[in-house]
Amino acid sequence: MAEKKMWGGRFAERTAATMEAYSESVSYDHRLYREDIRGSQAHARMLAAQGFLTDDEAVKIVQGLDAVREEIDAGNFEWKVEFEDVHMNVESRLTELIGPLGGKLHTARSRNDQVALDFRLHVAARLEQWDELLHAVVAAFHAQAEDHVETLLPGCTHFQPAQPVSLAHHLLAYCQMFMRDAARVRDCLGRVRVSPLGAAALAGTTHPINPEAVRSDLGLDHVFANSMDAVSDRDFVLEALFCSSMIMAHLSRFCEEIIIWANPNFGFVKLPDAYSTGSSIMPQKKNPDACEIMRGKTGRVYGSLMSMLTVIKGLPMTYNRDLQEDKEPFFDADKTVRMSLEVMAGMLPGLTFVPETMAATMRKGFLNATELADYLAAKGVPFREAHHITGAAVALAEEQGKGLEDLSLSDLQKFSPEIGDDVFDILSYEAAVRRRTSPGGTGPGSVNAQLTAVRQWLAD
Amino acid sequence: MAEKKMWGGRFAERTAATMEAYSESVSYDHRLYREDIRGSQAHARMLAAQGFLTDDEAVKIVQGLDAVREEIDAGNFEWKVEFEDVHMNVESRLTELIGPLGGKLHTARSRNDQVALDFRLHVAARLEQWDELLHAVVAAFHAQAEDHVETLLPGCTHFQPAQPVSLAHHLLAYCQMFMRDAARVRDCLGRVRVSPLGAAALAGTTHPINPEAVRSDLGLDHVFANSMDAVSDRDFVLEALFCSSMIMAHLSRFCEEIIIWANPNFGFVKLPDAYSTGSSIMPQKKNPDACEIMRGKTGRVYGSLMSMLTVIKGLPMTYNRDLQEDKEPFFDADKTVRMSLEVMAGMLPGLTFVPETMAATMRKGFLNATELADYLAAKGVPFREAHHITGAAVALAEEQGKGLEDLSLSDLQKFSPEIGDDVFDILSYEAAVRRRTSPGGTGPGSVNAQLTAVRQWLAD
Amino acid sequence: MAEKKMWGGRFAERTAATMEAYSESVSYDHRLYREDIRGSQAHARMLAAQGFLTDDEAVKIVQGLDAVREEIDAGNFEWKVEFEDVHMNVESRLTELIGPLGGKLHTARSRNDQVALDFRLHVAARLEQWDELLHAVVAAFHAQAEDHVETLLPGCTHFQPAQPVSLAHHLLAYCQMFMRDAARVRDCLGRVRVSPLGAAALAGTTHPINPEAVRSDLGLDHVFANSMDAVSDRDFVLEALFCSSMIMAHLSRFCEEIIIWANPNFGFVKLPDAYSTGSSIMPQKKNPDACEIMRGKTGRVYGSLMSMLTVIKGLPMTYNRDLQEDKEPFFDADKTVRMSLEVMAGMLPGLTFVPETMAATMRKGFLNATELADYLAAKGVPFREAHHITGAAVALAEEQGKGLEDLSLSDLQKFSPEIGDDVFDILSYEAAVRRRTSPGGTGPGSVNAQLTAVRQWLAD
Amino acid sequence: MAEKKMWGGRFAERTAATMEAYSESVSYDHRLYREDIRGSQAHARMLAAQGFLTDDEAVKIVQGLDAVREEIDAGNFEWKVEFEDVHMNVESRLTELIGPLGGKLHTARSRNDQVALDFRLHVAARLEQWDELLHAVVAAFHAQAEDHVETLLPGCTHFQPAQPVSLAHHLLAYCQMFMRDAARVRDCLGRVRVSPLGAAALAGTTHPINPEAVRSDLGLDHVFANSMDAVSDRDFVLEALFCSSMIMAHLSRFCEEIIIWANPNFGFVKLPDAYSTGSSIMPQKKNPDACEIMRGKTGRVYGSLMSMLTVIKGLPMTYNRDLQEDKEPFFDADKTVRMSLEVMAGMLPGLTFVPETMAATMRKGFLNATELADYLAAKGVPFREAHHITGAAVALAEEQGKGLEDLSLSDLQKFSPEIGDDVFDILSYEAAVRRRTSPGGTGPGSVNAQLTAVRQWLAD
Repeated sequence: MAEKKMWGGRFAERTAATMEAYSESVSYDHRLYREDIRGSQAHARMLAAQGFLTDDEAVKIVQGLDAVREEIDAGNFEWKVEFEDVHMNVESRLTELIGPLGGKLHTARSRNDQVALDFRLHVAARLEQWDELLHAVVAAFHAQAEDHVETLLPGCTHFQPAQPVSLAHHLLAYCQMFMRDAARVRDCLGRVRVSPLGAAALAGTTHPINPEAVRSDLGLDHVFANSMDAVSDRDFVLEALFCSSMIMAHLSRFCEEIIIWANPNFGFVKLPDAYSTGSSIMPQKKNPDACEIMRGKTGRVYGSLMSMLTVIKGLPMTYNRDLQEDKEPFFDADKTVRMSLEVMAGMLPGLTFVPETMAATMRKGFLNATELADYLAAKGVPFREAHHITGAAVALAEEQGKGLEDLSLSDLQKFSPEIGDDVFDILSYEAAVRRRTSPGGTGPGSVNAQLTAVRQWLAD
Repeated sequence: MAEKKMWGGRFAERTAATMEAYSESVSYDHRLYREDIRGSQAHARMLAAQGFLTDDEAVKIVQGLDAVREEIDAGNFEWKVEFEDVHMNVESRLTELIGPLGGKLHTARSRNDQVALDFRLHVAARLEQWDELLHAVVAAFHAQAEDHVETLLPGCTHFQPAQPVSLAHHLLAYCQMFMRDAARVRDCLGRVRVSPLGAAALAGTTHPINPEAVRSDLGLDHVFANSMDAVSDRDFVLEALFCSSMIMAHLSRFCEEIIIWANPNFGFVKLPDAYSTGSSIMPQKKNPDACEIMRGKTGRVYGSLMSMLTVIKGLPMTYNRDLQEDKEPFFDADKTVRMSLEVMAGMLPGLTFVPETMAATMRKGFLNATELADYLAAKGVPFREAHHITGAAVALAEEQGKGLEDLSLSDLQKFSPEIGDDVFDILSYEAAVRRRTSPGGTGPGSVNAQLTAVRQWLAD
Repeated sequence: MAEKKMWGGRFAERTAATMEAYSESVSYDHRLYREDIRGSQAHARMLAAQGFLTDDEAVKIVQGLDAVREEIDAGNFEWKVEFEDVHMNVESRLTELIGPLGGKLHTARSRNDQVALDFRLHVAARLEQWDELLHAVVAAFHAQAEDHVETLLPGCTHFQPAQPVSLAHHLLAYCQMFMRDAARVRDCLGRVRVSPLGAAALAGTTHPINPEAVRSDLGLDHVFANSMDAVSDRDFVLEALFCSSMIMAHLSRFCEEIIIWANPNFGFVKLPDAYSTGSSIMPQKKNPDACEIMRGKTGRVYGSLMSMLTVIKGLPMTYNRDLQEDKEPFFDADKTVRMSLEVMAGMLPGLTFVPETMAATMRKGFLNATELADYLAAKGVPFREAHHITGAAVALAEEQGKGLEDLSLSDLQKFSPEIGDDVFDILSYEAAVRRRTSPGGTGPGSVNAQLTAVRQWLAD
Repeated sequence: MAEKKMWGGRFAERTAATMEAYSESVSYDHRLYREDIRGSQAHARMLAAQGFLTDDEAVKIVQGLDAVREEIDAGNFEWKVEFEDVHMNVESRLTELIGPLGGKLHTARSRNDQVALDFRLHVAARLEQWDELLHAVVAAFHAQAEDHVETLLPGCTHFQPAQPVSLAHHLLAYCQMFMRDAARVRDCLGRVRVSPLGAAALAGTTHPINPEAVRSDLGLDHVFANSMDAVSDRDFVLEALFCSSMIMAHLSRFCEEIIIWANPNFGFVKLPDAYSTGSSIMPQKKNPDACEIMRGKTGRVYGSLMSMLTVIKGLPMTYNRDLQEDKEPFFDADKTVRMSLEVMAGMLPGLTFVPETMAATMRKGFLNATELADYLAAKGVPFREAHHITGAAVALAEEQGKGLEDLSLSDLQKFSPEIGDDVFDILSYEAAVRRRTSPGGTGPGSVNAQLTAVRQWLAD
């Protein structure tokens, strides 16, 4: 429909139908309409302040745009593929509503800086939501941690039981991850909240515009420094996609644990019905679907990051149409991250940890072996020998199907005469945790300090 | 809505609303409805043949499924999120239409083997379309090549003019790429066209079913060999995503060339209006949008591949809900590949190559330098010295703003007394191409042989 | 060291030291020396057959190259960075050994087709090794499967116990994966084994060469069809990298299972000391390091694939120096895949599966719940109701800390009067597996058929 | 060699040779030796301060470690694969030098926190180098920009000439990119510079250690908050890999431009010999190898990022051996980024931009078309009509092989009577650039302001 296109003048042939379908973006960028309208209103006010529009004209434009937004909000707007994108759809309707005055919005503006602004406003708003949701997730981990300071978990390295830890300590490790994510999101926000309006097509404009006024009107942090960079920069999308990849990676780690812990061989956690499914065939099943889906969706967000990295590789200056491919990966990653964080925040309070099964594992995993070795070392046995002695004791206990603490004193003394009656205090799992008093360790002092620090972070 | 769920019995709590939204797949897997219905019909016929259903029951089920498909085809079907996926939506409607008999379709089948079958049928059908579209693209390259056997192009290495080639030869190189893609697609198809039906949930079934009958009914190539593999294997999706990544990579290479060639500094090609856009601000612009978008969409398909590779990393047996994430990457890659191939096949005939600008470049790029060096070598000058002499002659011509063929004989003889009057025949670009008679080279004999071979491939 | 460079003539400045270090490839492509020499020998014989060399010259060149290879084999060769790559290092040494005759190898050849040939020969040889190693891994899975036809494993979906399966059946599922990998490798080989020699720089050559003779001499399958494609095509590397990604993905799936199964909460497998490590601190530890490392290395190979996909995106014709980046990703992926397959083939026979712990899990996971539901359905109870009844029985048994088979008949009959004394036969896990007689299912008939088929595949 | 292993006690079998080769890391992590020794020295001083060592013992350990470092620095150190990694190699040599006292370094430390510390120190040091090199690259762009404030370049959108810009403005856009990269690197550094020492294996330690003293000794910014997070966190590597991916993406964009600009059809830039290569066959060639290689290496760094993202997906707590795969991707990305930035900083001053060819393109590209449209609009012609009129004038000029400024006034007036004699001032490319006075635009005021701001940034 060449005759309807803004740029149709020099073109003899109509756009091919496949090309129209291939190149349109309104089917997905329509969701930027609020940002598009906000940006246009700020532009109109600036144009008036600079004398390009009368105040009355600016008011008409602003009100006209309000009307367009209300139509869209109300679902009374017909998006047209022949207008290609959200910008032309909005402008075209504005012109229907207020007449040729609508076209004056074009003054000193191009779709290149317009789309960059709209998308930056959108990404910024979403990153703020991520930050909020990360807080909600941290709060949910914190709440569970508060309930489980005394719960003992067999802490693993190499996914083999290593040393007993407080379940709270384990959960607080995830708080650290999501707090780092929030810090990254905020760093990223500082690079997103830059106003590119005024860069025009690529070179700036001959009109005495005021980009700073637009920035201030929109509440952004910086104005673009270089017009060519302003229209071609998509670093902010890439950085946001990286942030989302890290969030999903962290979620996937916890999901993996929950999936394994919910298997009856572990039985460390009972899943809330509200976030699980059963099987139409196998009546005993309760599947950790939320966690499986979330772990799977990690790939999806990684894919979006890889997608945009590929797009910008080797892309010359300035705006190239390849950049149109920036939106769907972000929209998809944003939806995935937000839903995943919401599901996690919703599911966490419903997880019922099962201290008894965790405790039963202690014995099976000889989680107090380090304690015995340390005990011997404290009695003066060289650590290497203490390590060997303990290894032999573990082998015996394993053979007898017992925990170390279930061996008799005489059995233990066969391995080393240094072992005395006091060894059984040492072999207590609770005591093992309590003794780990080092800063950041799993002892109750450190765990309580972490709880306080996270609470403080949440309050800030 | 726990009470409606097939597996709700043991569950006290309703599924959380966020979880329902997070886990549903009907919003995208509804597009598998035809395959789902085909598969169910084949299953019903097999059940009847094996005595689980009467012939009459099977007919009712098959007809009921036909009715469901017609409703969906006609747009008269209400997809319900509470039924989660396409399978339950179709089955639930079937049961409404034909009563409890619909439930008998469950016999010896699980959603695990059902979804694997549906998706394999879908992927196979799409790969066949890719193959067809690859043929269309090869045909379009071939048609342009036929018109340009005699057109001389400055062939590049390192994106520096290297030696003159026939434009047809250049275009035929792309035929090779897309023919390889088609071969890969066909190899992949052999691994897609495997029927998993009969694997049931994971372990097979106690019922005396006949998976071979289902395979034969559906016209697939193989029956699954191992039920656990059958429900957890998604290699076929990954391989299809890899095939699509290679297709996009090849398309992106040609798009890059067209984008550069359409820049007025090259001016090697004029773009068809139907696949270009202009600028609302800059009246002289004619932008190669189709090529830019296609180059950009390469990232999107790479991202889908990376997404699924991430999903299957470290995934234990057998079906895990993570695998639900297999569909959207494929749907998106499939849509992208099909549209891209269609656009390329549509755009190619509209490209107008400009032999004159290509010819003008020959001189600027000293594309006959190799000829001069070879000429000297043939006269007995050691190649290394010939190379140096030619380098010096190039430097002089560059200084004078001329081509080598524009230097006077006396100028040339200053570099080497071996140069005679016959050098000017040698410096002809046309002759340079004609002399490259080696098999697979750019000479007309090889090019015509390639044209014939590609024509033959297209005919097969 | 511009003065030493083949192409130095027109260059006034010496190459910068950083640039020399940045662009050299001999530090890694030296490992292609055997292929380089084989290719040059074939080229020399062809040149002689076509009359470019006397037979005596060809013999001297071939013998000279043999001498160079022997020097390298013996570690008596000094690789020089100033000669940039393996090709120039070998040629330069050849010329030292046999004099200027060495330079005649340049006839009708360029580094562009030379490197393509060397790399294709190398990739082909490695893919053949992968195929062999895949056979070794399949053989190792097959051997373990043969020992465990009767061993019962709680088969999982959603990583929740679902139905009992034969451990052999589970292991045979992996045979399917690696057999598919081998098939993919062989399909790929068909596209690797193409001789590009004779394409010269990009356009073929004016000399009457015989590429077919070179192909035949080297035992390759095809000759290149288009010289421009021949020097720029790296599809074969990408396809090999995809094959390697799939192999690693499959290995990572099994490694994940072994890591979890080796945790004492599962205790399904005992790791061989030879493939595990302990802890210098925790004497009880036995860590599944081989599996962890292998799972981790999956990322590495995926990264190599992504690396090359990025390289070729938007790369114009023909040879571009970017393509130099094809080798290290392949070398790394090749090393990783080969070592991983070797470690897997070595470790598998040392895995000691523990049927007793698997059996103990059956009860905990209510793996016979489906059997009870089917039993009820067979007695005429609608499946949906049977499913509910079984769910209730599971809940009771769970409450009592028992398996379903440990409930009393009177307890069971409270849920349904249809339950009779014969239910206890049904609740046997062994019987559950034996009853799954469907083709490809977990019953002994199917498992034995699979064992035979895999044995046959190994023998072919 | 189980008997030599620290943890060998419970192990009967020796480690398999393939496993030893598969799991060793010393072949690459030996490069952490300086950080390992620094960390151990800080640990020893802390142990002394806390009373675990006498001052004399601490001095002996510190001096012993100095001696080990000197041996390694001097190349007199034999790395042994049987000691697996850098840590055990250093410790083992220390013990040889100072006797069993060396073993006391083990107190309250594990390899898990030790390797995390070493790697953090290493990554931090490298990020600081990246920051410096980014400054060098920004300085090089700035220096070229200073020379080209007045040079006119045909600015592109869609890689089609759009509007004339100052070459300085174009180069300054790259300053923006690399300044953002530096900001990201510094944000990342804040998350890298965290001391994990004291986390021990995973749970902290029973000894009254002082992690804060170690942090202070090493000059790091923070102490770990949670020991489980401290040993399993690799976010810092991922974030560094993302930073490196962005740097390479930016470099690849400029390389793409230089590659195209160096093609004689553009001829916008002459490459320095020191960063180019020629062809052994084609004497006229001067290839932009540095840029091609750099563009290609972008894929390599993306691959490293993807590699690590895959590694951490679904990884349960805490340290898993998969994490050993963190080092090589970083080492490789670090080397690539540093060399690439060095080459770019070295090559940039040698680039000779060619204003004449850029100017010649202006005409061909009708870079003043926007000016004419604006001129008409300023005369009161509606912009849409002005756009059409200009399009028609462009078509005429194109037909006549002229620039718009070469059309006669009467020719121009045929399109619109509004066109007067003053149009020719408007059509000047220089004036077009000068008129773009908007902040951040291409006019000299903005460009000079940018030059000042970048100079300031470099000075800070």
